[in-house]
Amino acid sequence: MKASFHARHLAIVGLGLMGGSLALAMREHADRITGIDPDERTRCRALEHGMVDCATDDLFEGVNRADVVLLATPVRVIVEMLEMLIGAYLRSNTLVIDLGSTKQDIVDAMAKLPIGVNAVGGHPMTGKENGGIEEADESLYRNRPFVLCPSRRTTPAARLHAQSFVETLGAIPIEMEAERHDQIVAGISHLPYLLSATLVATVARQADNDRAYWELAAGGFRDTSRLAASDVTMMGDILSTNTKAVATLLAQFRMQLAMLETMLIAGDEERLSESLQPIRKARKDWAQDYENRR
Amino acid sequence: MKASFHARHLAIVGLGLMGGSLALAMREHADRITGIDPDERTRCRALEHGMVDCATDDLFEGVNRADVVLLATPVRVIVEMLEMLIGAYLRSNTLVIDLGSTKQDIVDAMAKLPIGVNAVGGHPMTGKENGGIEEADESLYRNRPFVLCPSRRTTPAARLHAQSFVETLGAIPIEMEAERHDQIVAGISHLPYLLSATLVATVARQADNDRAYWELAAGGFRDTSRLAASDVTMMGDILSTNTKAVATLLAQFRMQLAMLETMLIAGDEERLSESLQPIRKARKDWAQDYENRR
Repeated sequence: MKASFHARHLAIVGLGLMGGSLALAMREHADRITGIDPDERTRCRALEHGMVDCATDDLFEGVNRADVVLLATPVRVIVEMLEMLIGAYLRSNTLVIDLGSTKQDIVDAMAKLPIGVNAVGGHPMTGKENGGIEEADESLYRNRPFVLCPSRRTTPAARLHAQSFVETLGAIPIEMEAERHDQIVAGISHLPYLLSATLVATVARQADNDRAYWELAAGGFRDTSRLAASDVTMMGDILSTNTKAVATLLAQFRMQLAMLETMLIAGDEERLSESLQPIRKARKDWAQDYENRR
Repeated sequence: MKASFHARHLAIVGLGLMGGSLALAMREHADRITGIDPDERTRCRALEHGMVDCATDDLFEGVNRADVVLLATPVRVIVEMLEMLIGAYLRSNTLVIDLGSTKQDIVDAMAKLPIGVNAVGGHPMTGKENGGIEEADESLYRNRPFVLCPSRRTTPAARLHAQSFVETLGAIPIEMEAERHDQIVAGISHLPYLLSATLVATVARQADNDRAYWELAAGGFRDTSRLAASDVTMMGDILSTNTKAVATLLAQFRMQLAMLETMLIAGDEERLSESLQPIRKARKDWAQDYENRR
């Protein structure tokens, strides 16, 4: 099955970092690639760099004759497009995969597509600090996990087709239920974003009275605060389509924080140290595995 | 005044990342460097690499004839050493600077040193993910802020002498009260550490029931969780000598987090976005300044 995927006509909706990188990675595995994007400069760049054969701002024209459609826009735009696509603009047997960061709402919308359209939810666990087509990178997906979430209507053949697509991209397909995916990303991605943003808000408030907070902040602050620079529209979309899982994780986070704070304020250094040691070990073990997998 | 500092005999207590890097950076600015460290392998390595002229595990022997003494151990070991040094092991006019991460307890101990010993608290805003003499780096201090906190007994001459030392290291001296320093690092360093550790604890708990949390965690989690891998003894020391400032910041953090969470749960995306935009801008502005300064 490995790398056996070939598209006659691949349509990519959204030529940002994710869509642009996908175009580059699939260049040899599609006879023709059409890019759909509302931004003219983005379309020109994609054409000039040979990332796509054809570029348009018309969704329906773009996906009209495609046998594979990739949706690479923010989550709620994906949901809106899926609801519009219901109007039978897709050919029968078209494979539709999205790259949205939350999956339940998308997979629910996929289940309403006409019979014959093969839709699978997707979420590649990759990215970069800055977005945009300028950052597109052929190797962005390589060796990274790519979650696939079937809808309740996805056929076994469509699941195999989607897996084969992911393998051709160079990524590692991992299939799971949308609900489980959304719980996991609440912990590893959405909670970290909220903590990062809240840290910056807290420090910014102090810095209003003393600029030295900004002057002395260094590498530790840089790493912990990095996600706070994420695109706000994208993150708002993600959080708003995963509120329940995020709120659950926040409650657990608060409980864990209160335990550490209690030990700290009580001056119970032995218990504090006993709590922090396994946390350190868990982080170090994970980081080693993560680097080995890359 | 720039780079006019010269030591006849520099003694460095603690040959880890910070002490070892300091030895390398001061090699040309001291006639003789003695390293004091309890670990034999560390002492051998420092000697073999020509970082020091002489190495010993005996604190009093090591600092005995020094005109400059650098204390590069965890905070509470510094406090203990300062209390021991009161026993007049230091020559008159010796300059003592420490590299501890919190300053109030250290500066209080410095104020009790015999008259004639010139002590100034120090905190270089630099470091690396991994410690140890193997990581020592001549450029570690270069262009980085180096906070200097005088004790209530530090003379103007000693302050100038310490500033000249910091400039010779290649760092940027910033003088401030110990209390103000400790409040600032609570925000930019100790709070980020606690958030990072609590994030890992929260995810580890979920991962006990589903290994996929670890398998899917990627760059965002890596950055936000990095500080959780810090040395627990060092961090326990730091937190325990700055409990009040850390607890104050934690209270402000919780307030900010509750505000964002309220908007999220209420589905008030407009206010959520209006709150996240200035946070994003603050982080981006700071990161640009920070990179420009490096």
